[in-house]
Formats: sequence, structure tokens, C-alpha cells
Amino acid sequence: MSVPAIGLLHPGRMGAAVGHRLTAAGHRVSWCADGRSPATAARAEEAGLDRVADLAELTAASDVIISLCPPAAAERLAASVAETGFGGTFVEANAVSPARVRNIAGLFTAARVVDGCVIGPPPSDGATARLYLSGPGPEAARVAGLFAGSAVEAIVVDGGIGLASALKMAYGSYNKAASALAAVSHALAGTYGVGDHLLAEARRGAADHLSAPERLSGVAARAWRWAPEMEEAAATMAEANLPDELPLAAAAVFRRWDDDRDDFTIALPDVLDHLHER
Amino acid sequence: MSVPAIGLLHPGRMGAAVGHRLTAAGHRVSWCADGRSPATAARAEEAGLDRVADLAELTAASDVIISLCPPAAAERLAASVAETGFGGTFVEANAVSPARVRNIAGLFTAARVVDGCVIGPPPSDGATARLYLSGPGPEAARVAGLFAGSAVEAIVVDGGIGLASALKMAYGSYNKAASALAAVSHALAGTYGVGDHLLAEARRGAADHLSAPERLSGVAARAWRWAPEMEEAAATMAEANLPDELPLAAAAVFRRWDDDRDDFTIALPDVLDHLHER
Repeated sequence: MSVPAIGLLHPGRMGAAVGHRLTAAGHRVSWCADGRSPATAARAEEAGLDRVADLAELTAASDVIISLCPPAAAERLAASVAETGFGGTFVEANAVSPARVRNIAGLFTAARVVDGCVIGPPPSDGATARLYLSGPGPEAARVAGLFAGSAVEAIVVDGGIGLASALKMAYGSYNKAASALAAVSHALAGTYGVGDHLLAEARRGAADHLSAPERLSGVAARAWRWAPEMEEAAATMAEANLPDELPLAAAAVFRRWDDDRDDFTIALPDVLDHLHER
Repeated sequence: MSVPAIGLLHPGRMGAAVGHRLTAAGHRVSWCADGRSPATAARAEEAGLDRVADLAELTAASDVIISLCPPAAAERLAASVAETGFGGTFVEANAVSPARVRNIAGLFTAARVVDGCVIGPPPSDGATARLYLSGPGPEAARVAGLFAGSAVEAIVVDGGIGLASALKMAYGSYNKAASALAAVSHALAGTYGVGDHLLAEARRGAADHLSAPERLSGVAARAWRWAPEMEEAAATMAEANLPDELPLAAAAVFRRWDDDRDDFTIALPDVLDHLHER
């Protein structure tokens, strides 16, 4: 695999950006035009990717295939690659669960599967993304080597298939669900004409518990009164015909800390452990 | 109401801090010892509050009563004040829904009710909090005047009862649910041993959609693929015996934007409007 031929499925926004970083680093990267849109073709051309007609041709010509597609399509796409008898390295780089990556690995008889995930914006001259890779043996490190010196920072996570996906699920569920929370909050504030006040409060900045998890002990101690507050918020959303699921879901999380009421001394690992179903 | 006597129910962490700012500003503030804990009594004393024996005595002696208590207790507490025949100004400052504040206002026959909410930490010499107030007539402004020059910044929101509570619901549901999201994410990452990577990503900082809602148009355009990603995250949480409600709730929000797929031109007001049930 000293000069591996790379196949990319598919050149969406993220896929094309990652492919462009590979071609910029001197690699030959192919994409498969069968069934793709003119917009995809345009992105592929701009990224310097070589066009092949169909999937069979792509898999026959590739040592490494990188799968970057919408999560709902990931398993189907992997199955179609497996059906061609692909025997190289398949990088499952999508936002899917560790269990699904294990399923996907089981689809292949000849290929070696590496679990991966991309965190960050589509990489470009001005923006870097991280590609986390985990998998058995030296495959993850080999894939990481393809990106050396590029705007894709490849990071190998030791421990086998599933770890890169778990990281993506942990990070993405925070980040994307937080954007859903913000949307519902602004929709509610707009309904009552208090959007400017909400924005002013937001711009004061608030505690970010993802980057300062040590504060979660204080959250657990207060959760007994935050659960009812979230239920009040859910009722407010419902009354405004807005989705009430997010505050109800937060209340369900807070109720797992009922036994930690007003105890500000519990260590973070125990606080997190109490979230597991008992 | 030039030198009003103030009653405070109850001196919890937030109540005692707000009461302390009032006594520091020269006001006389009473609290009601009946049924409260020694910890509450200690906080009340430190805040310079006058002790009275029971609720009837407190309401008889007070021109203004400020209710600051856990949200689950707010309506019951208001009802017990109403039953005394209290005829002054009742400030419902708790984290409850606008509908509940309207219910509470309906409990009183003689009192004037002002809707309020506190956002920020318990106020002190080093920390300010905002007390938003909304209500009919000049009452909200009168209550705001009590806090002039203190570490409680009182802000009157024109438009009547419900607006201050709606603001608290919009802000609190973001902020507190985001802490629940962070907790579940760290618990998941810990389960897979990738907590350090999650923390490193968190510390890079990510888009904050509450303080930059203009980015929500891009969220709506991507929501068609983020909903399945949230379902993958939910499956990952469930497999780890962690609560899966938050990512499922985010998926439900994202599905309300199905019709906005890949349309990056929709204006923010329309994006928010699409969240309302149609």
C-alpha cells in the first residue's frame, strides 16, 4: 500500500473536501459517477478526483475506499461495496453507531474495515478537520498516513472498531442537539416577543459543561429541581405548538440523579456513572 | 408603596441571595420560619432577613411578597399566600410556564401579581443576576425600583403576565438541557474510553447557536441528515444503558425541517416558524 489507489464514496460537501485534501497531497482518488447528481460531479471535478463509471470499476481499481455519505445511507453503501468482493481497506467514516460499524464490518469477507469519523468543518486551505480512526492491526495507522501534512488531522484511537464512532456519537449528539435546543428556544422567545432578551442573555455566555465537565457534579446536585423546571418548559413549548421533546428528555436525564439531591461532594466519575440504567 | 415591607418565600440559595441584595439596599425583608430547615434559617440570618413565625404573619406585614422556590412548589406556595387574603403585590419569580403564572394570578382575589424570573447566578458582591419582570400596569416597574443600585438588575418587559416566564423557559431549557446533553456525552465517551478526545474537541469550541441564531438556517438545511445521525446516537446511548431521549428529541426537532432540505437561503424567521406544528 505504498502508493495506494483511493476510492471515495461520495463527493458530497464533506467527501469532496476530504478528497481534495488527498489529491492536493499527491494521491490519486477516484469517484463513482453512477447515480450521482451534477452537483456531485462538479464538486468531484473541482476536487481533482478521477471519474469512473460504476461501483464495480471503482472497487476493482481501489486499494482503499473511504465511505463518507449521509448516515442513513452508510450501511446500504457498505453492503454494495462488499457485494463487489472488494478486498482492500474500507474506511467507514460516517456518523453511525459502534454497533452499526460492527454490522458493516461483518458484511465484508475479503476487506479490512477501519472505523472512522470526521469532526470539524469540511477541510480546506483555511480550516482543518480531524479524522479519528480506530481498527484492528496497523490498518488505522496506514490510513492516517495518507493524510500526513494535509488539512485533515488523522488521529488513531487505539482499541479497535467502534471507538471512533462512539466519539462521533458523543460529540455530535451534544453539538447537533444543542443546535436543536437553540432553535426551539429562539422559536419560543420569538412567539412571546422576547427574542432580544434571549439573545442578550445568550451573549453574556453561560457555563459550557462539555468543555468543563467538572461542573456536572453541581448539575447532578440541582437536578431534583431542574427536572420540574424542564417539565414547565415542555408545557410552554407545547402550548406554543413547538416540539416539547427536548426539555422532557432533559428532565428524564435529571431524574436519574434523584439520589444525588443537594450533594455537591460527589466526584465526576460517580456522577456520570449514575446516568447508567441501574 | 414608598417604603414597602417585603416578604420573601423562601430563603433558599437564590432567595437568600436576592433578599440579601434588598437588605443591603436598606429594605426591610421578612421571611417565614414555619416548616423551613435550619439551613434556610442560617441563610436568612446571614442575609439580614427578619424572622416571622408563620405565613399569616408574613402576609399581614408585607406590601410585596417575592416567591422564589423550586418550580414544583410554586403554585402550591402561591395558593397558600392567596388563602391568607394577601392584598399587596405578589411577585411570581419562579421557573414556571406562562400558563402556570396565569393560573397563579387567578388564585388571588385581592393581590396584584407580577410575573418574574431570575437569570444568572445568585447575586452577590461579585456576581449580578437579572430579574425580568412583566405584568399589568405600573406594578412591574415598582418592583424593579426596589432593586435600584443593587447586584440584581431588574428589567421590565412590556406586555403583561407570561413574558418573563416565557423568557426563563426559553433560556433555561437551552442552558439546562445543554448540561444534560454534556453529561450524557461524557458518560458515553467514558464508557468507550474516549473521554479525553471528547474534551479536546469540546475545548476547540464549537458553533453556539443560541448566541448566533443566524446559523440556524444552515442547521435546517442539514437537518434531513442530522435526524438519522441523532437516531444513531440514540442507539449508541441505549446500547450503553444511557438515556437516549435527548438525541431522539433532537431528531424529532430536525424532522420538522424536512421540507427545508439543502435550502441554505431560507430566512431565520421562516426557519423558526417551520418548527411550529402545522
